Amino acid sequence: MTGPDKSAIGVRPMRWQRFRLELIDQRELPLDVQWISIETPAQAAEAIQTMVVRGAPAIGVTAAYGLATLQDEASNNTVWTAACDRLAASRPTAVNLFWAIERMTQRREQILAADGDLANGLAEEAEAMDAEDTQMNFAIGRNGAAAIEGTDRTVLTHCNAGALATSGWGTALGVIRELHTQGRLASVLATETRPYWQGARLTTWELLQDDVPVTLLPDPAAGAAIKQGKVSAVVVGADRIAADGSAANKIGTYTLAVLARQHGIPFYVAAPVSTVDLECATGDDIPIEIRSADEVLQFRGQAVAPAGTDVWNPAFDVTPPDLITEIILDSGRIKPPFGPGLSAAVTESSTR
Amino acid sequence: MTGPDKSAIGVRPMRWQRFRLELIDQRELPLDVQWISIETPAQAAEAIQTMVVRGAPAIGVTAAYGLATLQDEASNNTVWTAACDRLAASRPTAVNLFWAIERMTQRREQILAADGDLANGLAEEAEAMDAEDTQMNFAIGRNGAAAIEGTDRTVLTHCNAGALATSGWGTALGVIRELHTQGRLASVLATETRPYWQGARLTTWELLQDDVPVTLLPDPAAGAAIKQGKVSAVVVGADRIAADGSAANKIGTYTLAVLARQHGIPFYVAAPVSTVDLECATGDDIPIEIRSADEVLQFRGQAVAPAGTDVWNPAFDVTPPDLITEIILDSGRIKPPFGPGLSAAVTESSTR
Repeated sequence: MTGPDKSAIGVRPMRWQRFRLELIDQRELPLDVQWISIETPAQAAEAIQTMVVRGAPAIGVTAAYGLATLQDEASNNTVWTAACDRLAASRPTAVNLFWAIERMTQRREQILAADGDLANGLAEEAEAMDAEDTQMNFAIGRNGAAAIEGTDRTVLTHCNAGALATSGWGTALGVIRELHTQGRLASVLATETRPYWQGARLTTWELLQDDVPVTLLPDPAAGAAIKQGKVSAVVVGADRIAADGSAANKIGTYTLAVLARQHGIPFYVAAPVSTVDLECATGDDIPIEIRSADEVLQFRGQAVAPAGTDVWNPAFDVTPPDLITEIILDSGRIKPPFGPGLSAAVTESSTR
Repeated sequence: MTGPDKSAIGVRPMRWQRFRLELIDQRELPLDVQWISIETPAQAAEAIQTMVVRGAPAIGVTAAYGLATLQDEASNNTVWTAACDRLAASRPTAVNLFWAIERMTQRREQILAADGDLANGLAEEAEAMDAEDTQMNFAIGRNGAAAIEGTDRTVLTHCNAGALATSGWGTALGVIRELHTQGRLASVLATETRPYWQGARLTTWELLQDDVPVTLLPDPAAGAAIKQGKVSAVVVGADRIAADGSAANKIGTYTLAVLARQHGIPFYVAAPVSTVDLECATGDDIPIEIRSADEVLQFRGQAVAPAGTDVWNPAFDVTPPDLITEIILDSGRIKPPFGPGLSAAVTESSTR
């Protein structure tokens, strides 16, 4: 088992050298660290679809690099459109994917109009998105840590909104890492996050890599942990945030928000501004991906339930704004009612 | 793969022929139906501790049969006390275990005082408890079905409070089976119930055996199912019910009760009167078993999380009375405030 490249910020799920992307195969974590090579947009789309890489910001950056692998072929409109369509069809819920495709498409048009170096220009744009994502996560971390007062904090998180879900550092785990850096974190409680085990497999792994104390609990134990006063705050990521502040995130997030409210514990959603989709007025407008029964019925080839059992396997749920204490963006802390703050953050982001 | 004995009532987790008990090894379900032979109280205790058999009523009947395997050796006070102690130490939360040991001990004293046939007398008592348990489940089923009005009902249940958790038919699943018999059940939603998968492995299996329609969902999906209006009622079993109506049941039950309340859906706890422990004034008095990290970290030898990860694995949580709509006993439906009704049910049961 070879470890990943560790830069100063710790774990990163990807490494890029023009014009080849390598991704950690997150399906094999924590058992093995295998790198998969991506040299075409179709390979990038396949990696997103099969969850080699997951997490809304990481999906966005992967899509950008995927398009950059086209190099000079990107000048062909048919090739470009087909690549964008294939990537857009890989996963439906994370809006960062569509945001990344759109940004790369706009950059391509600028370069073509200026008769510039398309291959290197697109690569530079993807590299900028990658670097910006990490910087945004640092900002999200600082903003979120400022929202969580006190010392000796135990933070519960769900799924993996960490370094592995982004370019590095993480969104929800960015907040947690910042608290840790400030010496105010007692421990992380990580829910397993069935059926894909992002908490058990990924959050534990990346926190152990970076020496952040973590305790794993089965998803059904979250209620008892909160009821018994073990949790200071809940912090999660998001795959898409609607204009009213409704947040689509990993299935099970809604339940944690209800439990947090029941026990008067703050519930924070941490994400870059690219996760905000003002075209979705409310959570009802966010498409929710339903994944296969096999993800639930088997684990590494071992049957969990009788073959052929009927399964309901939605990948995400939507937490309504009234259960969210604050939305933590890179640009700042948005408080309820979320509409005006989210709208301003998107406007500011598009003009900077 | 050989199927279990099917009597008229369907699946049963045990079969007894004086003086030998056979148990389905529930750890191997749904992959295989293996029967394990129990010929001593120590073997019965081991089977309970290692979860060959689980479910509060089934544990009670197993303990009774375990003591009956002593036959004439049961006349030796030292042997009897050691057997009772070993069984009592097997699992701490399910009160039916202690109730069964106490009832067998009282019967032993009566037989000894009357100079009766100890071996056959103890066997008769255990057989009576076994038969009574099934009859009680029929009554629980009728009472619970009467509480759930309407047709085309979708009932969500957690863990396995079914035939496999009892002498047959089940408590929570007894209610569901009765609704099915009455033609008022659309479907069962079964939560996986991490970390031991009782929902995925056992509830699905026994309902499929008996042709009751069931859909499996990951534990984190329960919130979305309830929020989206897919659930008419939640019905669960119990391992111990305190005098005030607080119910200890499989970890995750509390969360479902909070979700049900949030969405105005009735939440029923179904159990035999032997589950009521008036010596526990409230839920705080119920001992909660903490099980091993290995149950969480591995599945059939496959690692789920990094080796050595810190784990919190409580087997049960406690649902407070204010989140419970009704407690469904064999003797009737107990409505809030639960104290007087539970007290009366225990008194009536001990004098009948």
